[in-house]
Amino acid sequence: MIKRKKISVIGAGFTGATTALFLAQKELGDVVLLDIPQLENPTKGKALDMLEATPVIGADANIIGTSNYEDTKDSDVVIITAGIARKPGMSRDDLVTTNAGIVKSVTEQVVKYSPNCFIIVLSNPVDAMTYVAHKVSGFPKNRVIGQSGVLDTARFRTFVAQELNVSVEDVTGFVLGGHGDDMVPLIRYSFAGGIPLEKLIPQDRIDAIVERTRKGGAEIVNLLGTGSAYYAPAASLVQMTEAILKDKKRILPSIALLEGEYGYENLYMGVPTLLGGSGIEKVYELDLTPEEKAALDKSAQSVRNVMNVVG
Amino acid sequence: MIKRKKISVIGAGFTGATTALFLAQKELGDVVLLDIPQLENPTKGKALDMLEATPVIGADANIIGTSNYEDTKDSDVVIITAGIARKPGMSRDDLVTTNAGIVKSVTEQVVKYSPNCFIIVLSNPVDAMTYVAHKVSGFPKNRVIGQSGVLDTARFRTFVAQELNVSVEDVTGFVLGGHGDDMVPLIRYSFAGGIPLEKLIPQDRIDAIVERTRKGGAEIVNLLGTGSAYYAPAASLVQMTEAILKDKKRILPSIALLEGEYGYENLYMGVPTLLGGSGIEKVYELDLTPEEKAALDKSAQSVRNVMNVVG
Amino acid sequence: MIKRKKISVIGAGFTGATTALFLAQKELGDVVLLDIPQLENPTKGKALDMLEATPVIGADANIIGTSNYEDTKDSDVVIITAGIARKPGMSRDDLVTTNAGIVKSVTEQVVKYSPNCFIIVLSNPVDAMTYVAHKVSGFPKNRVIGQSGVLDTARFRTFVAQELNVSVEDVTGFVLGGHGDDMVPLIRYSFAGGIPLEKLIPQDRIDAIVERTRKGGAEIVNLLGTGSAYYAPAASLVQMTEAILKDKKRILPSIALLEGEYGYENLYMGVPTLLGGSGIEKVYELDLTPEEKAALDKSAQSVRNVMNVVG
Amino acid sequence: MIKRKKISVIGAGFTGATTALFLAQKELGDVVLLDIPQLENPTKGKALDMLEATPVIGADANIIGTSNYEDTKDSDVVIITAGIARKPGMSRDDLVTTNAGIVKSVTEQVVKYSPNCFIIVLSNPVDAMTYVAHKVSGFPKNRVIGQSGVLDTARFRTFVAQELNVSVEDVTGFVLGGHGDDMVPLIRYSFAGGIPLEKLIPQDRIDAIVERTRKGGAEIVNLLGTGSAYYAPAASLVQMTEAILKDKKRILPSIALLEGEYGYENLYMGVPTLLGGSGIEKVYELDLTPEEKAALDKSAQSVRNVMNVVG
Repeated sequence: MIKRKKISVIGAGFTGATTALFLAQKELGDVVLLDIPQLENPTKGKALDMLEATPVIGADANIIGTSNYEDTKDSDVVIITAGIARKPGMSRDDLVTTNAGIVKSVTEQVVKYSPNCFIIVLSNPVDAMTYVAHKVSGFPKNRVIGQSGVLDTARFRTFVAQELNVSVEDVTGFVLGGHGDDMVPLIRYSFAGGIPLEKLIPQDRIDAIVERTRKGGAEIVNLLGTGSAYYAPAASLVQMTEAILKDKKRILPSIALLEGEYGYENLYMGVPTLLGGSGIEKVYELDLTPEEKAALDKSAQSVRNVMNVVG
Repeated sequence: MIKRKKISVIGAGFTGATTALFLAQKELGDVVLLDIPQLENPTKGKALDMLEATPVIGADANIIGTSNYEDTKDSDVVIITAGIARKPGMSRDDLVTTNAGIVKSVTEQVVKYSPNCFIIVLSNPVDAMTYVAHKVSGFPKNRVIGQSGVLDTARFRTFVAQELNVSVEDVTGFVLGGHGDDMVPLIRYSFAGGIPLEKLIPQDRIDAIVERTRKGGAEIVNLLGTGSAYYAPAASLVQMTEAILKDKKRILPSIALLEGEYGYENLYMGVPTLLGGSGIEKVYELDLTPEEKAALDKSAQSVRNVMNVVG
Repeated sequence: MIKRKKISVIGAGFTGATTALFLAQKELGDVVLLDIPQLENPTKGKALDMLEATPVIGADANIIGTSNYEDTKDSDVVIITAGIARKPGMSRDDLVTTNAGIVKSVTEQVVKYSPNCFIIVLSNPVDAMTYVAHKVSGFPKNRVIGQSGVLDTARFRTFVAQELNVSVEDVTGFVLGGHGDDMVPLIRYSFAGGIPLEKLIPQDRIDAIVERTRKGGAEIVNLLGTGSAYYAPAASLVQMTEAILKDKKRILPSIALLEGEYGYENLYMGVPTLLGGSGIEKVYELDLTPEEKAALDKSAQSVRNVMNVVG
Repeated sequence: MIKRKKISVIGAGFTGATTALFLAQKELGDVVLLDIPQLENPTKGKALDMLEATPVIGADANIIGTSNYEDTKDSDVVIITAGIARKPGMSRDDLVTTNAGIVKSVTEQVVKYSPNCFIIVLSNPVDAMTYVAHKVSGFPKNRVIGQSGVLDTARFRTFVAQELNVSVEDVTGFVLGGHGDDMVPLIRYSFAGGIPLEKLIPQDRIDAIVERTRKGGAEIVNLLGTGSAYYAPAASLVQMTEAILKDKKRILPSIALLEGEYGYENLYMGVPTLLGGSGIEKVYELDLTPEEKAALDKSAQSVRNVMNVVG
């Protein structure tokens, strides 16, 4: 008997809900959208609305909304988007502590019902939260993965495609290190149609694009006025999930546990990885220039500072 | 020279934004998402976030947010989702009058910049608002179309698929008349795998499914607590848009101007139509039983009552 | 660890090769294309050519050509297209006997390496060959399935869509009984946009379409001059395979073992079925008119005559 | 009124037919498959078989087979696959002369009925045949394009993906110059996940992959025994067609008329191009190392030698 795969999305905000939608559109499996009991009804509402779109989309996927972790039982992949946004007057450390508590409690429940799942984390600050999920779950490192680089490169690719007026399909980007402000872009490994960007775009424009990418999350936050980006983050989560569920062996940037790679120990940070049916199947190590290594060290320190807050 | 098609979505709330997303995913053309000047920034934010998802989705579509109708110039299709939701204490007629004013003003702008476009209306109450768009635009009836039946049947199909535990792809539904409460379902033209539903589902369960479909919009509203459904409505709008832009000649329920069909004159109401490159290319007239005709008359009267409010 | 599904296609003629292509395009799993040792090189050539298309198509699927059944080990689904075409001067019974021998020997090998697979049979005459695969495999009836009705209705739908100039997506057809000449179309269960065809097409045109459908295979054979249809048969096989691998619970016509259904015992014949992760999960029984039952009896007798040849 | 795009495929052999199939699957437009009068029936047979697959595939595309160029009237894109294969005892120059005659006569007919179309050429030897189509059509250079590099890089990408056991989606290749044996691969612009191949694969393995790519066409010919590759060539043609019809602005290798680029005058040869709604919208010029330039000169000379045969 062949059973559909099962994916649970923890946190039914805009990102979680959009993630569930994309998963269903691709028929990657049945989807459980979970949020806290106080939000059970809206969660059910979003799931039902989405389900009612499936006949038109032409996708067979059961989608349910719930606040009960039992419904996530035996998930193949669990995506954690839960967490609060930083509020005015809140220190960064307070944010970290609060979200670490949320991710801890979510992970405990996830592990209880799906001891063999893969966990993909989006909650912020994502490097540290992936570390929390790893520690709390006790899962091997290949099964606990964070998302940041797919999104950072998606933004970078968008801006480059606009700059050159070319297809987004032909632009690639390459980032290492922490998310957003902390990212370390490797322009020499970024291309349009295989052509190094430096041959196509003046340096000052590249610099501007990199800077815009770094602040990409804030740009959306400022425009929206309330809330943060969700379409591109959700698409990024689903690309990683698809790589695992279809054992595609994609080379994608992931937040992975480093145990010596790039000279770091016991650090969750963005690196190029091979994503397939065993989760993170490989971390690619690249030779870095001294400047790149210095930037990565700085990024690593920034990530470690946050990790230290969560202990 | 071959140019991309252009689709403008008026109203950048959840339905409008989700519609823009689906259009881009299908590479149906470039997308303009428009809302009022006060919401220009959030509209730009949603459009940008969506655009930043396109490299991951693998779709080439420019998506912009704006409050300036000039940006909608020469659209092939314009989708109108603008309008307010009924507020506590507001009479139905007040709602109708307010939204009629909005749709009138939107249509005037749309027509000014895209005199040859197709207009698809979702704004509520949709039968009357489609009528308003028709009158204000002065467009021939094949180019002004309302959405209700694709959504109503999508919900019906979802509930039937759940009841029978079969693929949503194999269930069809058939509705005439007004939207939601006013819909007239034709169960004898509704099937699972080509088998009439009456042979597969007990009558009381069919009745329950019909009733749930009628109240399908309210079910989502009640669950969400704030706001109304948007995933299934957006999917429905995009299916109609695709039928036109690809000249697919789909047989889909649309809100069409009746000029004698089914015995009604000058009435915009849901009927089975042929949707292709000329918009509504045909209205299918069916023989109705006396009971069905009576129900349709009632539905038509209800629609006409609303239309009378808008003059 | 998540592994890709595996599908083996036995017989690397045009139908087998096209089936492999469609499977890879949909990323349903890795594909093994197998033919006899004398054709091993061409089989490898087709598989390699197809594989070299995957970067352009954007699909991750390993595709190999082979003549060694060991390569089919642990397939989830095995599709049998092997068999010879009727040659001039060959009696029908000779054809049946020859192909029964081929299917028997193929099935023995398939079962040896994939004892838990689903078998889908296309080899001609397909009702009898499905019976052979069932008997030889010893598999339960839900795991041995023949294809004919998806193809017959695909042709019927094509001709109706042309007649009405409507989308193929909105036309459904319904057949029972044997393949091609022996098929029993149920026009009252065939629709365009949910509207019974009798209300849209004059009876003499419907009759002509039914007759053309019956002879649909021969029409292609006559046009091609050498060989027979493969695009539509391959698409049909893949739709059934997808229903199983994604547990879609499609309602599709399949050749199923009847054990009392429709009044027949121990007969493999075309009936409406539920296709999901357990293969044939259900046979739908319909009330037939006396004329329909008489036609089905005739069809059943024709199928049984062929089955008797193979013992 | 919105009309479907129209694509004509000249030559209904395996490549032409498979191209038609891929075009229809993607709903890029209606498809005309044309071959010589003696092959009219098989051409009609292939087209009809394909059309009968569309209800199952879920694609609306009319597909017709014909030998009458009038049926290609007002095509948006015309793909020329016509030509003979080299036969034993035939000199290369004889082959060139014969196919030049075929392409000349095809082009005259194409131009007569579709004076505004884009022409994409696959006929062999493709650089010279593209030149013939350009000269005979009198079309501006942006509208006459040859295919070779998409196919060469597809093969290269396949072999690299196998070598590294990674997704084909993440491997890119880069070639200049003539097709097959004459191709000039730029390994330094070829990547897996953005990482230069030299950092991932030992040089001797890269060399072996390049050599296998060069002989990629012959490898398939030898395996098949009769005939040559068609799946990957067809996929390549369709990717280029899609780039034009959807104005995607893809950066893809095309055979383009060089007028000074890379130091060549009046030469049709493979270079990186921007493919969009105006056909070849740009030729990208890259700095080459002396070794690369020498290899390209050699390739150019080889192409020019063939062009000289056709005058």
